[in-house]
Amino acid sequence: MIRVGIVGASGYTGAELARLLCNHPQAQLTVATSRQYAGKPLSQAFPSLRGRADIVCEDLPVADLAGRADFFFTAVPHQTAMDIVPPLLDAGKKVVDLSADFRLHDPAVYEAWYQPHSARELLPKAVYGLPELHRGMIGNASLVANPGCYPTGIILGLAPLLKAGLIDPDSIIADSKSGVSGAGRAAQTGTLYCEVADGFKAYKVGEHRHTPEIEQELGKLCGRSLTVSFTPHLVPMSRGILSTIYARAIGAMPDLAGLYQDFYRGEEFVRLCTAGEFPATQYVRGSNYCDIGLKFDPRTGRVIVVSAIDNVVKGAAGQAVQNFNLMCGLPEGAGLGIVPFFP
Amino acid sequence: MIRVGIVGASGYTGAELARLLCNHPQAQLTVATSRQYAGKPLSQAFPSLRGRADIVCEDLPVADLAGRADFFFTAVPHQTAMDIVPPLLDAGKKVVDLSADFRLHDPAVYEAWYQPHSARELLPKAVYGLPELHRGMIGNASLVANPGCYPTGIILGLAPLLKAGLIDPDSIIADSKSGVSGAGRAAQTGTLYCEVADGFKAYKVGEHRHTPEIEQELGKLCGRSLTVSFTPHLVPMSRGILSTIYARAIGAMPDLAGLYQDFYRGEEFVRLCTAGEFPATQYVRGSNYCDIGLKFDPRTGRVIVVSAIDNVVKGAAGQAVQNFNLMCGLPEGAGLGIVPFFP
Amino acid sequence: MIRVGIVGASGYTGAELARLLCNHPQAQLTVATSRQYAGKPLSQAFPSLRGRADIVCEDLPVADLAGRADFFFTAVPHQTAMDIVPPLLDAGKKVVDLSADFRLHDPAVYEAWYQPHSARELLPKAVYGLPELHRGMIGNASLVANPGCYPTGIILGLAPLLKAGLIDPDSIIADSKSGVSGAGRAAQTGTLYCEVADGFKAYKVGEHRHTPEIEQELGKLCGRSLTVSFTPHLVPMSRGILSTIYARAIGAMPDLAGLYQDFYRGEEFVRLCTAGEFPATQYVRGSNYCDIGLKFDPRTGRVIVVSAIDNVVKGAAGQAVQNFNLMCGLPEGAGLGIVPFFP
Amino acid sequence: MIRVGIVGASGYTGAELARLLCNHPQAQLTVATSRQYAGKPLSQAFPSLRGRADIVCEDLPVADLAGRADFFFTAVPHQTAMDIVPPLLDAGKKVVDLSADFRLHDPAVYEAWYQPHSARELLPKAVYGLPELHRGMIGNASLVANPGCYPTGIILGLAPLLKAGLIDPDSIIADSKSGVSGAGRAAQTGTLYCEVADGFKAYKVGEHRHTPEIEQELGKLCGRSLTVSFTPHLVPMSRGILSTIYARAIGAMPDLAGLYQDFYRGEEFVRLCTAGEFPATQYVRGSNYCDIGLKFDPRTGRVIVVSAIDNVVKGAAGQAVQNFNLMCGLPEGAGLGIVPFFP
Repeated sequence: MIRVGIVGASGYTGAELARLLCNHPQAQLTVATSRQYAGKPLSQAFPSLRGRADIVCEDLPVADLAGRADFFFTAVPHQTAMDIVPPLLDAGKKVVDLSADFRLHDPAVYEAWYQPHSARELLPKAVYGLPELHRGMIGNASLVANPGCYPTGIILGLAPLLKAGLIDPDSIIADSKSGVSGAGRAAQTGTLYCEVADGFKAYKVGEHRHTPEIEQELGKLCGRSLTVSFTPHLVPMSRGILSTIYARAIGAMPDLAGLYQDFYRGEEFVRLCTAGEFPATQYVRGSNYCDIGLKFDPRTGRVIVVSAIDNVVKGAAGQAVQNFNLMCGLPEGAGLGIVPFFP
Repeated sequence: MIRVGIVGASGYTGAELARLLCNHPQAQLTVATSRQYAGKPLSQAFPSLRGRADIVCEDLPVADLAGRADFFFTAVPHQTAMDIVPPLLDAGKKVVDLSADFRLHDPAVYEAWYQPHSARELLPKAVYGLPELHRGMIGNASLVANPGCYPTGIILGLAPLLKAGLIDPDSIIADSKSGVSGAGRAAQTGTLYCEVADGFKAYKVGEHRHTPEIEQELGKLCGRSLTVSFTPHLVPMSRGILSTIYARAIGAMPDLAGLYQDFYRGEEFVRLCTAGEFPATQYVRGSNYCDIGLKFDPRTGRVIVVSAIDNVVKGAAGQAVQNFNLMCGLPEGAGLGIVPFFP
Repeated sequence: MIRVGIVGASGYTGAELARLLCNHPQAQLTVATSRQYAGKPLSQAFPSLRGRADIVCEDLPVADLAGRADFFFTAVPHQTAMDIVPPLLDAGKKVVDLSADFRLHDPAVYEAWYQPHSARELLPKAVYGLPELHRGMIGNASLVANPGCYPTGIILGLAPLLKAGLIDPDSIIADSKSGVSGAGRAAQTGTLYCEVADGFKAYKVGEHRHTPEIEQELGKLCGRSLTVSFTPHLVPMSRGILSTIYARAIGAMPDLAGLYQDFYRGEEFVRLCTAGEFPATQYVRGSNYCDIGLKFDPRTGRVIVVSAIDNVVKGAAGQAVQNFNLMCGLPEGAGLGIVPFFP
Repeated sequence: MIRVGIVGASGYTGAELARLLCNHPQAQLTVATSRQYAGKPLSQAFPSLRGRADIVCEDLPVADLAGRADFFFTAVPHQTAMDIVPPLLDAGKKVVDLSADFRLHDPAVYEAWYQPHSARELLPKAVYGLPELHRGMIGNASLVANPGCYPTGIILGLAPLLKAGLIDPDSIIADSKSGVSGAGRAAQTGTLYCEVADGFKAYKVGEHRHTPEIEQELGKLCGRSLTVSFTPHLVPMSRGILSTIYARAIGAMPDLAGLYQDFYRGEEFVRLCTAGEFPATQYVRGSNYCDIGLKFDPRTGRVIVVSAIDNVVKGAAGQAVQNFNLMCGLPEGAGLGIVPFFP
C-alpha cells in the first residue's frame, strides 16, 4: 500500500480525493490536512464519508507533513501551493498539485494572469498532467500539475483536429458551462442556492485564468501559438462541465468519427458518441470519463465539438488519481472504475 | 375592453398568456380552447390560476371561434397554425400567431426546414413581431408572427452591431442555453425531471429550426444574406434563455455601450448592463425584459454579446401581448409591468 | 401617495418588498437602508430590479430615518429590530416589523427562546399581523408584528378546525418544508448551491424558534395552551413552504370542505383545493396566496391538512404589504394582485 | 461467476441494477429484457453505461428466459411480476422481485390495496427482503420480495423503538419525502422537469400503497396489528427519501443512541448520526446506506426519528443486490462498496 496524503482535504476536491481513495486497491490515506476542521474527522466535514473516511484532519506545518506519507495531493488554492510543494519535493516525495501554480511553463504568462511566482525553478520539472497527451512524461515525473477543469475537456475535445491540422487555430471559440462545485466550498453570496438555482449566466467573459492554459496546450498540438475565445458559464447543477467548441475547417473534412477513434484508441477514459449523438454531463457524473461528440456543419464550414466531463473527477480528483497511478507504476485506472451515476 | 381568445390554452405559452391577461387593463379573455381540457376550467390544468383564470376550456371548430373574440392568440404547433389563422383573418379578426408558420418570408426556406406550407399567400402580409425592430409595421398588421424564443434574444443582441457594420456577418456564432419550458408540456421522457436535473447538454447541433429565422432577420439588418452557427442547449431550469454571441470585429471598435444606448433609447423592455457586467436569466424571470451585456476582447478581435430573456415571456407570451398592444393602439407596455421575480 | 421606507433592503425580504412596492398604486419607496450597499442603487444588489427600483441605499442612523417616510417596514434580524422600532413609533410613524421581536405577547416566552428583550413595553401594543384572524386589530395598530413564514401556513391551515373544536389540541404535529430563501442572503456554507441541491434534510428538530409563535396563536383559537411538534425541513427550491399537519379528530367529523369555505369566505388570499386535491408550492409562487387541502382519514382517525405559501410573499413581504394596506385604510389587496408564476 | 438476468432493464431500477452489477466481483449480467429497447444496447437507453453495460436488450418470452441466467431480478410493475416470477421459480431459478406482488403476506390485504392476485400460492414462500430484520430467512429463500422504497427507511427507523416497546404503536406518523426517480421513467406530465422543479407537494395523502407493507412489518416488530398515518411528498431532486417519523413515548425514555447502536451493531449499511445531528439524503446518494438520526422531545413527549436512504439503491437495486448476495452465500456487501457521492 502506498501511503497517501491530502493537503487541503476539506474542500470539494479534497473530499473527492478521499472518496476515490476509499476504493483504491493500493493507496491508503494516512494524512489529511485542514485548518478549518483540524482535530475533527473528515467525515464531520462531509457526512457522506461517515464510516468510510473518518481520518482526523490536522493543521500541520509543511515540515511535519512529509514524513506522514509517500505521495501527496495538494488541493489548496494557487499561490498557497507554490509554498507547500517545494519542501515536499525536497523531501523526496512525489506530488500531484491540483492548483494552477505549476501548469504554465512560461513564468511570464503565469505572472501576467495570476501574481508573482515564488518557485519558478520548478516549472521546467513540472509535467502537465493530461494523461491522454502526456502519459510518458507523467510516468517519469515527481511533480505533476493537474490540469484545470475547463482545459481538460476543451483540450481533449480539440486534440485530434488540431494535431491533424484540420482547423484554423485562430478560429477557436470554446463556450463552456460548469456546475457550481467548481467555485468551491467557501461561503460566498454568489454561489448560494437562491442565487444560482433556476438561472444561468456567463462570468469572467474573456478574462478567465484558464485561458492561457488552454492556449499553451492547444499550441503544442498545432505547433504554434494561438489565442482562443473562452467563455465560462454557471449552470444550476452541482457537477459537470460541457464545452461547445467551434472552429473553422481547413480544406475538405475527412471522416471525423474515424479520426477520433484512431486518436483515442485504447483510452480507458475517453468515450466517443455515435454519429449524431452528443454528450451530456449527467452521463459522466461521478466518473472519470470524458465523452465527446462531433459535427461538421457544411452550411457554415465549421466543426463543432462537444465534450463533457465531471469537473470534480476527470476535471480534478479523478485525473489526479489517474496521474498518481501513472507516477507509481500502477494500472492507470486503479480506483477509477466508478460507473457514471444516473439519474 | 377588447375580447381576446387563446387558441391552445393548455400549453405553457397558453397559460402564460392567461396569466398576463389577468392583469391587463384592457383585455378580457373570452374564449380559451384546449382539446385535452375541454369542459374543464383552465385553472384545473394550471392550479396556479385558481381564482384568476377559471374560464372553461372548449374544443371548438374554427368556424365557431371567430365570433367569440375580437383578437386571437394562436398558441398551437406549427403546421396546425396555418389551418387556423386564415379563417380568423377572413372573419376580420387580428391575430398574433406564436408558431413558426408565418415567421419566414420565403416559403422555400420554410419548406426546406419544416414541411409544405398551405397558406403561402399570407406570408407577404405577416409581419415579424419583434417590436424593437418592426414597431411601425406591427401597428398596421392584421397578422403578426411572434418570433421564436431563441431568435428574440439573439437578434436583439446583435442588431446595433450589425446595423452599424461593425462585425463580419459571416463570423457569427450564437451559443444559446434554454430552460426546459421551451420544450412544452407534452409528456416525453427527454424532459422528465430526472433526465434533465443536475445535467447539461447540447441538442440539434447545427440543425435547429430557429436558424433560418435568425438568418432572415440578421440579414435584414446588415443588408445581405448570411449563415450563422447556432447551437441550443438545455439548462436544468424552468425558464430563461441566455445567448452568448461571438463575432469578429471589423476595423476599430467604437464605444459599444454608447452604441447600444443610442440604438435602444426609449425601449421599455431592453435593459443594458453596466460595463463589465453581464445578464443572467434569473434577473429577467417572469418579466418581458431583454437584458444585454457587451465585451470587446482585443486579444482575439472578437465582440461577445450576452443577452438574457424569459423564454415564456419576452420569448413568447409577453412579446405576443406587446404585439397585441401595438396592433390595438394601446400603450405598448399595458399588462406587462411585471417586475422580474428573484430569487 | 404614502411615503414608505424599507429598513434592511438588501436581504431577500427587503428586495421582495421593493418588488411589490413597484406595482403598488399608493405607496412610494422613499428610503431604503443597507449597510452593505450604502451609496449604491438597490438594483445593484438585485439586478432584477434594474430600471424599477434604482433607489440608492443609505446607511442611516435611526434618528435621521423617521423624517424620510410615513410608514416603515423593518426587515432586519431579531434583536436589531427592538432597537429600531421604538424611535420610529415615538416619531409617530407606523411600522410593520418583519422580525420575531414583537410577535410573542409574553416576554418570558420570548426570552426563553431568543434573548433578553429591551422593548418589553411595546409588546402589549403590537398586533400579530395575520389579517385573516386579526384584521380589525391590525387596522387600528401602529405596530404590527408580521408573522413568521412557518407559522403563517400552519395557523391558517388549522384555524377552522381548532376554532370548531374538532381536533385534540395536544395531538398536533406540523411537518413543514421550506425553500432556501428562508435562510436569507448571508454567505454561509450550509446554503451554498452544492450543499442543498439534489438533497433534503430536517433541521432544528424540536427546537425551531417559530414553535412558541405557532403555539401562541393556536392557543388563542382553541382557548387554552398547547404544545405542538414542529419539524422544519430544507427543500432544494428557492421559494415556498408546504406544511403537512396532523391532528387527532374528536368525535364525528363534519364536512371539512364546507367548514373551511365558511371560515374563509370572502378571503382574497386563501384558496381552498377541491376535494381530493392538495396544494403545491409551485402553484402559489410569487403570489400572496395560501392554498389549503384537506383530508380526514377514517383508518387512523386523523385529520391531515396541507397548506402552501410563498415564504417570501405571504410568509413575509406580501403579508407585510397586506398589513400596510389595512393600517393605512387602503384596499387590502392593493399591490398584491400578482398571479402565481408557473412554471 | 453467477449468471444474472434483469427483467425490465430499461427503467431506472433496472439501469441501477446494471450499474451495480458492473462492479460486482461475482455476478455477470447475461440477459437484460426490455420491450422498448429490444435489439438495442442498454447503453443506448442509458448513455451513462456506455462502455460498461453494452449488453443488447431483448424482448423474450418467459419460457426462453430461464435458461439464460441462474438468478433473476424482476424489475417490472406489480401485476406483471406475478406472471413472470412463477415460471422462473419452477425452472429452479432464484428471484428477487422488486415489485409489490410478493411483499404482503395476506392476499386479502394485497387485493384490497392492489388488484386480484394470480399467484397466491407463492406468498407463503416469499420472504420480505429487509436483510437487517430477516437475514436468516433471506439466506434460505428462493423468492425474495424486495421492500418498497418508503417502507425500507421507515421500518429501519422505527425497528429498535418498536421492538423495545418504547412507543405507542397507534401513534405513528411517517411523513416521507421522495426524489422524483421513484416515479419511474415513463413519460408523464406530472414528472416533467417544469412541473416538479422549484416546487414541493404531497400526494396520495392517506392512500399510498406502501401503507399496508409498512403496517405489516411494524406489526411484526411490536407483536400486534397497527395503523400508521403515512404521507408521501415529492421533492425536486432525482434521488433520495427522507422520512420524518413521529411516535408517542411510553414511560421513561432510555438512551436512544445506545438502543440503536445495540440494535444495529455490525450492520454494514446502517449508519447512526451522532447526537443532535440528523441525516440528509445528499449524504447517502448513490450508496446502499440508511442513515438514522434521533430525538426525544420532552416538551411533547414524542420521539422523532429521521431516516435517509437513496431510493434507487437501498430503496431498490442496492437492497436487491444485498439480498442476492445473501441468497447466494456471498459476502453481504459484495458490489455495494460505493461511497456516497457528494456534492
